[in-house]
Amino acid sequence: MTAGLVTVIGLGPGDPRYLTPSAAAALAAATDIVGYGAYVDRAPLRAGQRRHASDNRVEVERARFALDLAADGGSVAVVSGGDPGVFAMAAALFEAYEAETARWPGVAIKVEPGITAMLAVAARVGAPLGGDFCAISLSDNLKPWDVIVARLKAVLAADLVIALYNPISKARPWQLGEALKLAGAERAAETPVIFARAVGRPDETIRIVPLDRAIEAAETADMSTLVMIGAAATRLIARAGEEPFVYTPRSVGVRP
Amino acid sequence: MTAGLVTVIGLGPGDPRYLTPSAAAALAAATDIVGYGAYVDRAPLRAGQRRHASDNRVEVERARFALDLAADGGSVAVVSGGDPGVFAMAAALFEAYEAETARWPGVAIKVEPGITAMLAVAARVGAPLGGDFCAISLSDNLKPWDVIVARLKAVLAADLVIALYNPISKARPWQLGEALKLAGAERAAETPVIFARAVGRPDETIRIVPLDRAIEAAETADMSTLVMIGAAATRLIARAGEEPFVYTPRSVGVRP
Repeated sequence: MTAGLVTVIGLGPGDPRYLTPSAAAALAAATDIVGYGAYVDRAPLRAGQRRHASDNRVEVERARFALDLAADGGSVAVVSGGDPGVFAMAAALFEAYEAETARWPGVAIKVEPGITAMLAVAARVGAPLGGDFCAISLSDNLKPWDVIVARLKAVLAADLVIALYNPISKARPWQLGEALKLAGAERAAETPVIFARAVGRPDETIRIVPLDRAIEAAETADMSTLVMIGAAATRLIARAGEEPFVYTPRSVGVRP
Repeated sequence: MTAGLVTVIGLGPGDPRYLTPSAAAALAAATDIVGYGAYVDRAPLRAGQRRHASDNRVEVERARFALDLAADGGSVAVVSGGDPGVFAMAAALFEAYEAETARWPGVAIKVEPGITAMLAVAARVGAPLGGDFCAISLSDNLKPWDVIVARLKAVLAADLVIALYNPISKARPWQLGEALKLAGAERAAETPVIFARAVGRPDETIRIVPLDRAIEAAETADMSTLVMIGAAATRLIARAGEEPFVYTPRSVGVRP
């Protein structure tokens, strides 16, 4: 029997209109779809496909399971929201693969990129990522909190726009508030902060608040929220009857 | 006459299989397509659409032109490669719009996200963006070089994976070498560096080299190249007969 293939696929934000044709074709070709239940449910179904929904917490186990299916000849789609390489399943898959490469001889691995949350959020509000920017996960499950603090201080001082992934959960209730306090010590009170929840889904909510009111606003954030902190130059353009546009000019300290 | 709409659209990397259905629908609905010639040529053509190709250097003029067309009632697509909000046309459009808002009353502006180069490159090689990361443009047309150096030093010290956009051009021949020297002073000689040119296009080339050979490899880089510098934990997994996988484990300093 020929060994198969694992494709780690980014579904993009909730709306299927953001799923790339390349990712859709990979999903359609799969014999097995593996992932967190909510993502497996979002993948378009084809007759004869097997679905394997699992709890979200066991990423490396899920990766091993997908590699085992592929070793048996399957064409296995591992599904992630957003982009699979940004705080999602792709790195977990390579961690599992590297640890036991000999267990899956001949299995091929591919990654299909997707629209990650910060790009979807940026598009929805304007162009807040118009300058240099970074993406930092606030989860301290996999890195010590003091590393996160040091990284936040560095990127705040360097004036990057900051996209915070995994900002808050029941197990990590205070980290987002601490991160916003660090930002408040470095950036102006009126710096725009974006709280975007469930972008591209019917229950999408977007709030844009000044940094000095962000800690208060953070009380409504949850695991589906992406938080974006503007740089010094990030600005609002008012709109009648709608949330303002938020954008970061391309220039820093020079007038074009 | 009703004022129209400008939609800034991300075409993704060159391959049309990365164009989202949402962006494709916005392109199909446009009366006018505006952009740098190579991007306008990539947009699928529909009978009756007007095409306005321009030189790549005049982004704010192009933005004004698009807004003028929309003020006359057009449904105008402004096309960018990758994601329009990442070192592309979206910020230029909002700069133009903010400077003369009263010139375009009633014109609506939307942004359609796309697969930006760093996501496409990451997917092609594995999962190098598996940890915290940043995107920095090396172009000093719009920001002083000393700001770029300060930002590079900050993100190097903070151990972020670094995606360098606009790494080199005829007018900016030495900046990439300087950036790689800064990286060499901070990160280990064997740190993987990825040079990815024209990802998703037929002439795609990807080279993965250790940091201590990156300056030499940079000689083949051009404006279509994205350069990615790994973090301390970024690793290779060898593959027979192919470039190795590159990935960054999710953990920092803790074993899961």
